Amino acid sequence: MTERNVWRLAKRPVGDIADGDLVYAAEAVPALEEGQFALRVIYLSLDPTNRIWMSDQEQYMPPVVVGAAMRGGVCGRVIESRRDGVAVGDLYAGLGEWADVMVTDGTGMGQLPEIPGVPLAAAFGTLGLVGPTAYFGLLDIGQPKAGETLVVGAAAGGVGQIVGQIGKIMGCKVIGIAGGKAKCDYVVNELGFDACIDYKSQDVGAELDRLAPEGVDINFEQVGGDIMVQVLKRMKLFGRMPLCGLISQYNDVDGADEPGFWTMMLMRRLSVRGFIVTDFAARFGESGQALLGWMLEGKLKTRQDIRPGLANAASAVKELYSGGNFGKLLVEVTPP
Amino acid sequence: MTERNVWRLAKRPVGDIADGDLVYAAEAVPALEEGQFALRVIYLSLDPTNRIWMSDQEQYMPPVVVGAAMRGGVCGRVIESRRDGVAVGDLYAGLGEWADVMVTDGTGMGQLPEIPGVPLAAAFGTLGLVGPTAYFGLLDIGQPKAGETLVVGAAAGGVGQIVGQIGKIMGCKVIGIAGGKAKCDYVVNELGFDACIDYKSQDVGAELDRLAPEGVDINFEQVGGDIMVQVLKRMKLFGRMPLCGLISQYNDVDGADEPGFWTMMLMRRLSVRGFIVTDFAARFGESGQALLGWMLEGKLKTRQDIRPGLANAASAVKELYSGGNFGKLLVEVTPP
Repeated sequence: MTERNVWRLAKRPVGDIADGDLVYAAEAVPALEEGQFALRVIYLSLDPTNRIWMSDQEQYMPPVVVGAAMRGGVCGRVIESRRDGVAVGDLYAGLGEWADVMVTDGTGMGQLPEIPGVPLAAAFGTLGLVGPTAYFGLLDIGQPKAGETLVVGAAAGGVGQIVGQIGKIMGCKVIGIAGGKAKCDYVVNELGFDACIDYKSQDVGAELDRLAPEGVDINFEQVGGDIMVQVLKRMKLFGRMPLCGLISQYNDVDGADEPGFWTMMLMRRLSVRGFIVTDFAARFGESGQALLGWMLEGKLKTRQDIRPGLANAASAVKELYSGGNFGKLLVEVTPP
Repeated sequence: MTERNVWRLAKRPVGDIADGDLVYAAEAVPALEEGQFALRVIYLSLDPTNRIWMSDQEQYMPPVVVGAAMRGGVCGRVIESRRDGVAVGDLYAGLGEWADVMVTDGTGMGQLPEIPGVPLAAAFGTLGLVGPTAYFGLLDIGQPKAGETLVVGAAAGGVGQIVGQIGKIMGCKVIGIAGGKAKCDYVVNELGFDACIDYKSQDVGAELDRLAPEGVDINFEQVGGDIMVQVLKRMKLFGRMPLCGLISQYNDVDGADEPGFWTMMLMRRLSVRGFIVTDFAARFGESGQALLGWMLEGKLKTRQDIRPGLANAASAVKELYSGGNFGKLLVEVTPP
């Protein structure tokens, strides 16, 4: 293979991602240097944080340089190797490029075991980064106790679906918030959430009052904006808020933040803690084992929303910000 | 003693506490019932939270009922007892009334040991509630590590002076913020803070940039408003903010909160946790032992600002909100 297709960041988006911010082109695959290997990418993970990487706002790792290949989570098979211990046919996953072939020295990547009975899309789309995000955010920061009330926004998304199911495993009352009846029905009927609020057709605050008159112990926050405000106002004494994301803000041009609720945080002794999954990288073994165990026991189901064709990545990623995805959003770059 | 003097809450203040919100009068001491005892109050503690109790805003314990005796921290000696185990002459401290004599069944109070070499004002004004507030807020929530940078607002106040000294004991670089040269000189020269910013004559943000170009690991927050914002903007990755108070907001009529900094909290993985000292009541033995040990070793010095005369309590309490006190504010109700 001498040619590859790759998406490059042509310019930083202003507001929503627009045509031309990312450009798709064929180019020569770089020759392998000693210590490198080439992956044929199978799945590309599209995640809310992609929009942050495209910007030069304050963020948790360097932004993608304009002109560089767009960064993304990938999994793929080794097709050529000049690195000791890496063999053709091995399956790798980690931070890579929006490309069908990529060359790497393995930094930020790890070998992905093949798991009998678990399709690659589910393994990558659950055990990759969204599973550990849900696991550490809910368990370490949220500290759920049996009988407590947990609210999960973006409930049918990659992280939300896992958070809610771990919440049920821990004995919590779990209320999801999602856009549309299909997503709400899914998290309640298929995943076992206690209830789900459809923010597109229901009044989130009024529904929270009805479904959780006792208040909210844990708000697993991924969304920000008015939905966050509605949940925050209903937090109980000693409530916890793992702050995982603020997807409603990422395309925001004026950058104005929601109010601080400082007085309420004091009076109700709330705790808020921002986190990024890579903060917990040293403990990914622990999360992987727990998540896989729950999957094999049938306690953790996950849904992937798989879009075929790398050429569609730039239009697919936009759906994250409008709620167009239903499950973990993946691009199938080449057949598994 | 058949008569006592007492401050009652006549009406809830709007904005600053005004004449007539609290009224001072002599009245008959209630006759003791079985299980009660009478205290002659020696010191009344005046604390920022008093203003919260006068209001009916959301708060962490029931507000003082209009017409009732004003609530306050007190210490005093038993002058009459119909309670087993409580003898005339015993020293008690806890939540009581703005009064020179009070009748109680001991709820919310505990015996205060007499400590050789430590004046009662220092023992009550340090080991009472401000010491445990500083101890648990800084150690449990702030989690200081040697070499980290700690910022303490209201640095010469009751809690701030202790927070900074515990920070030094833990090996932190400690930067105080206080109003006026005398307070700044005191915390640096007498208490060993590394530096102090005079918010009345200096630009807090610019001074933070100069004194802590590395950024702030821990912000022990008691003040709110623009000073909080200046510190928050300079928080480091994984910074912690024990949220102890927001004194600049307590007289605020419009109730608007400062911005939320949600995006920054996420990107820098900050944690913010509100707390009230009584949340840690089960561990007051631990804090008392540690604080007293540091006092006796000379590592913890505290200053009290003692105002004579219960009749002056209502004017003295207002000084907390204008920065008029210098050290822990106490009223000497009767001689110790």
